[in-house]
Amino acid sequence: MQLPAAPGAVLIDLAGVLHVGSDAVPGAVEALTRLRATGVPLRFLTNTTRSPRQAIVALLHELGFEIAAAEIHTAVHATRQLVDERGLRPHYLIHPDIADEMGPSHTEPSAVVIGDAGPHFTFDGLNQAFRLLMQGLPLIAMARNRYFKETDGLSLDLGAFVAALEYAAGIEAEVVGKPALPFFHGALHELGVEPAAAVLIGDDLHDDIGGAQRAGIAGILVRTGKFRAADESDEEVHPVLVVDDFAAAVRAILGG
Amino acid sequence: MQLPAAPGAVLIDLAGVLHVGSDAVPGAVEALTRLRATGVPLRFLTNTTRSPRQAIVALLHELGFEIAAAEIHTAVHATRQLVDERGLRPHYLIHPDIADEMGPSHTEPSAVVIGDAGPHFTFDGLNQAFRLLMQGLPLIAMARNRYFKETDGLSLDLGAFVAALEYAAGIEAEVVGKPALPFFHGALHELGVEPAAAVLIGDDLHDDIGGAQRAGIAGILVRTGKFRAADESDEEVHPVLVVDDFAAAVRAILGG
Repeated sequence: MQLPAAPGAVLIDLAGVLHVGSDAVPGAVEALTRLRATGVPLRFLTNTTRSPRQAIVALLHELGFEIAAAEIHTAVHATRQLVDERGLRPHYLIHPDIADEMGPSHTEPSAVVIGDAGPHFTFDGLNQAFRLLMQGLPLIAMARNRYFKETDGLSLDLGAFVAALEYAAGIEAEVVGKPALPFFHGALHELGVEPAAAVLIGDDLHDDIGGAQRAGIAGILVRTGKFRAADESDEEVHPVLVVDDFAAAVRAILGG
Repeated sequence: MQLPAAPGAVLIDLAGVLHVGSDAVPGAVEALTRLRATGVPLRFLTNTTRSPRQAIVALLHELGFEIAAAEIHTAVHATRQLVDERGLRPHYLIHPDIADEMGPSHTEPSAVVIGDAGPHFTFDGLNQAFRLLMQGLPLIAMARNRYFKETDGLSLDLGAFVAALEYAAGIEAEVVGKPALPFFHGALHELGVEPAAAVLIGDDLHDDIGGAQRAGIAGILVRTGKFRAADESDEEVHPVLVVDDFAAAVRAILGG
């Protein structure tokens, strides 16, 4: 796979690429402004499922990034679309902050839908979901990330609780966010751009770059956020470029 | 593998074999009395890690079973022995009811030790354990059962939370209770009996019968507790006998 000479769209991961926690990555604000000036359509992808889209936009604005809510492709929103399209009656195990975005749980559910509830995960909540899975309901996971970096250290992400339910119930979840192909393709579909014409910039070798690779999208790996030195020599996932940070990725795309 | 003509020891699983929840399995009390009358040494095995040994003995006495605390080989007790033998400084993620049996957590731990905390599992407790695992501490799991039957339905067992931590931290736990071979061999070692001379009676195809099979012990599967019809035709695990219940297992052992 090669970097397209003049990409038709750029997909940009948020956490670890534009910001780490509540700090902007140095040079990222200016680099995004330069990228925007070229007129290339942008979509920002995130598997964060603890916060509603408006809260994500508010944080980005506070850090100086000019990003519209409609440009952000969240796993939460993609899950809501999937629930609506399939006419599912969801039982939600999610963070209270996204309850408004998802709507109410049904009393006679047809699927268990799980997001990152963080400190709101309880034994009783997990057990209730487990019992529904044992009755044969499918498990739809907004994402299955292992952990993320908080200001005071690494923290368990949604994937741990998905793995717990999968193991106990002997089933496999359907994942909506990265690295699921429909998530990447959905973002490009909105823009009418083919995968081969797009570029993705991400810090997560497997979920960002690996997912993009399977979706037919060239991936640029940045050495910020979750990046680990071993990521540069992975046997299966091959970024088209590995660069120091988002600003360097933008320079590479702009050919300068 | 064959049923020994005159076994040197009988290993008996508790939940699902002698009792289901707070009900004795019909005929089990009398069958245990007949088995005892032959003088064959007995050991009772349990992966239950929510209750101290004395509480298990108390429940069995209430149901009419004559069983001494010293005859019960629990995953909790085996874990305490392992912690002591290896001189570990444990960080415990366990049920408060077994805190006395395990002793205090260390402030500078060398291992994370997890038992079934049930409703006492919290995000913060799991996250604290996760952070220690990410620092390189090993995970020792008292058991990794998927679920068990409560009076109001199936409930998540310890295995779900072990799977959560394993997935997030990218590690594999060391399991102490069934189906780990040292657990079976430890019970027999106390009695000075070789595996080939012993018999196990259990309701869990994989953890009881499969574990016993790998440990060189003939396993009798009972059709109570967790038993499912498909267990009789498993490709890998082969009970020497499948019988209706504990009383039938005792009849088979006594040759009558």
